[in-house]
Amino acid sequence: MACKFCDIAAGRLEAQIVFEDGRTLAFLDTRPLFPGHTLLIPCDHYETLADVPTELLGPLFANVQLLSRAVEAAFDADGSFVAINNRVSQSVPHLHVHIVPRRRKDGLKGFFWPRQAYKDGEIAMAAEKLRAALIKLSKSA
Amino acid sequence: MACKFCDIAAGRLEAQIVFEDGRTLAFLDTRPLFPGHTLLIPCDHYETLADVPTELLGPLFANVQLLSRAVEAAFDADGSFVAINNRVSQSVPHLHVHIVPRRRKDGLKGFFWPRQAYKDGEIAMAAEKLRAALIKLSKSA
Repeated sequence: MACKFCDIAAGRLEAQIVFEDGRTLAFLDTRPLFPGHTLLIPCDHYETLADVPTELLGPLFANVQLLSRAVEAAFDADGSFVAINNRVSQSVPHLHVHIVPRRRKDGLKGFFWPRQAYKDGEIAMAAEKLRAALIKLSKSA
Repeated sequence: MACKFCDIAAGRLEAQIVFEDGRTLAFLDTRPLFPGHTLLIPCDHYETLADVPTELLGPLFANVQLLSRAVEAAFDADGSFVAINNRVSQSVPHLHVHIVPRRRKDGLKGFFWPRQAYKDGEIAMAAEKLRAALIKLSKSA
């Protein structure tokens, strides 16, 4: 099946590429949150973060570090936002790390989503569920 | 200076801890976007992603992988959202990776921020700026 980001990695589709090191590739998002919004992808096709081989994680996120510094320097930003959508809200099913320059008064407040509150005891129950899932995952690993 | 997340890592401040491996620690955010919203931190104090030592990146993001699988399993989610705020929108100046369960109809659409469009030639200019910043960073490394 055709994958837009595999096509960019293979040079079959044009993009504003800013970085490549053989295993990963970075290019500008054409519909940015702010100018300079960059996407870093592994050149090989992995759908989500969970699918990336362990040995690629260090090099991949070292490049996220580098790009977070670079977008801040290039666009005179006060900070940066790094994000990954796994499946939900994921426009292209090829892992891409968003690296977005941020400014203090850029119009996006707080964590930009409505926060909720846990009711009494609900947070402990949620923690129990998550611990159980982690135990199950560690047993199946 | 007091750091809330250092206090949690040292056991001086209570939290719903769900995972720890000596170098990193995960606990539930008390004001979640959705129940199960988890924060993963390095136990040592690093302010932003760019400050984390290279050798910690692989283990840290292997745990982000694990937690993204676990929050999806525990909260019957369709996907997950992984995010880091560096300085801007960062509530606690101790790196924390947000890992949030997502569902297809959870009320958050697309990438939840107003996207912009580049005008003619602007994307090429932005790419040039970013390439120049990367060259400068690679020379100073």
